Amino acid sequence: MLCALLKIEHQWIHIDILKGESKTAAFLAKNSNGKIPLLETPDGTCLAESNAILNYLASESSLLPRDAMQRAKVLQWQFFEQYSHEPFIAVARYINIYLSLPKARQQEYQDLQAGGHKALAVMEKQLLATDFLVGNTLSIADISLYGYTHVAEEGGFDLNQYPGILAWCKRIESMPGYINMQDSEL
Amino acid sequence: MLCALLKIEHQWIHIDILKGESKTAAFLAKNSNGKIPLLETPDGTCLAESNAILNYLASESSLLPRDAMQRAKVLQWQFFEQYSHEPFIAVARYINIYLSLPKARQQEYQDLQAGGHKALAVMEKQLLATDFLVGNTLSIADISLYGYTHVAEEGGFDLNQYPGILAWCKRIESMPGYINMQDSEL
Repeated sequence: MLCALLKIEHQWIHIDILKGESKTAAFLAKNSNGKIPLLETPDGTCLAESNAILNYLASESSLLPRDAMQRAKVLQWQFFEQYSHEPFIAVARYINIYLSLPKARQQEYQDLQAGGHKALAVMEKQLLATDFLVGNTLSIADISLYGYTHVAEEGGFDLNQYPGILAWCKRIESMPGYINMQDSEL
Repeated sequence: MLCALLKIEHQWIHIDILKGESKTAAFLAKNSNGKIPLLETPDGTCLAESNAILNYLASESSLLPRDAMQRAKVLQWQFFEQYSHEPFIAVARYINIYLSLPKARQQEYQDLQAGGHKALAVMEKQLLATDFLVGNTLSIADISLYGYTHVAEEGGFDLNQYPGILAWCKRIESMPGYINMQDSEL
C-alpha cells in the first residue's frame, strides 16, 4: 500500500508462513528472526519489521513529518500497533480466518477480544479529535494501523461501534493511489 | 539511562502500576493507553512508548545514525524488542520478580522460556558479528534491548549460554555516563 501511494517500483514475493517458507535456511539467512515482511534492496541489504520498512521507504516523503515530536508521535502509534493492537486483533483474525477457529483455540480467541477493543477505543479517541492519527495529514502511522484495523471484523471486532475509525478508513481509501492490499497480495 | 548518557536534565516520577497509578483519570488524560513510560515535555506534550521516547530524545545525537538504512535498522531492533523479546523476557521476569511466581502462572512462565531464548539467539548471532546491534557504535537500539536483556536472568534465562550478549553488556556498561537503571529508579 505504501509502495502504491509513493509509486515505489517493487517486486512482491509471496512467502507462505503456513508452509514454513519463512523458516527455510535461505530465508533465515536474510532474517534470522524468521518473520515476514522482509524488504530486500537492490544491493542485497535486508530489512525486517513492517514498521521499520515503512519508515525506511517513507523517510524522504510527506508521509513522515519533519518535526521531531511529530515524527516521534508516528513511532508512538507504530509501537502501539505492535504491542497493543496486532497481538489481539491480527492474532484473533489469524485464528479465525487462517486456522478456521479450531476448538483448541476458541478460548484464546475469546480472550483476545477485550484487548482488541481496548486498542480500538484508544484509536477512536484520537480519530474523533484529528482526521489522522498524527494530526490532520496522512502518515505511515495510519498505514501501519489501517492494515489490521480495516479487516478487524474478520477477527470478530464490530467496527460499527467506532464511527471515528470507520470515517478514517474511508478517508484513507479515498487517497490518490490507494490500493486494496488483499488484492495486491494475490 | 539515555538521559544520563546524553546528559538530558529531567525529573523522574515513579508511577506504581501495581497500585493502578497508570489507570487513574489524570494519567489516562496524558496517555489513553494507560501505560508507562511516558515523557512529558516542558510545554506539556506527552509522548508514550519507550522506543518512541528514545527516538525523540536521541534524534539529534550520535546514538541515532544519519544514514536512512542504518536508522531503519535501529527501528528494526526496537520493533523486534517490542514483539519478539519483551513479551517473553520482560513478562517472565515480571511474573517471577514482581508477582513472586504464583502457582497460577507457572505454566505461562515455563511457556515463555522458549520465545525468550529464541530472541536471545537472534541477538547473539548479531553480536558475534558486530560490537553493537547496528554496526560497531552504540545506538538507541542497544539501549532498547539492554533494558530487559541485562536482567534476563531474573526471568529464568541463563545468559552464560550467550557470550556475545555478555560481552555486549560489558561494552555498554563501560560507556562514559553509563548508570545502573535500577539504582536510578529508586
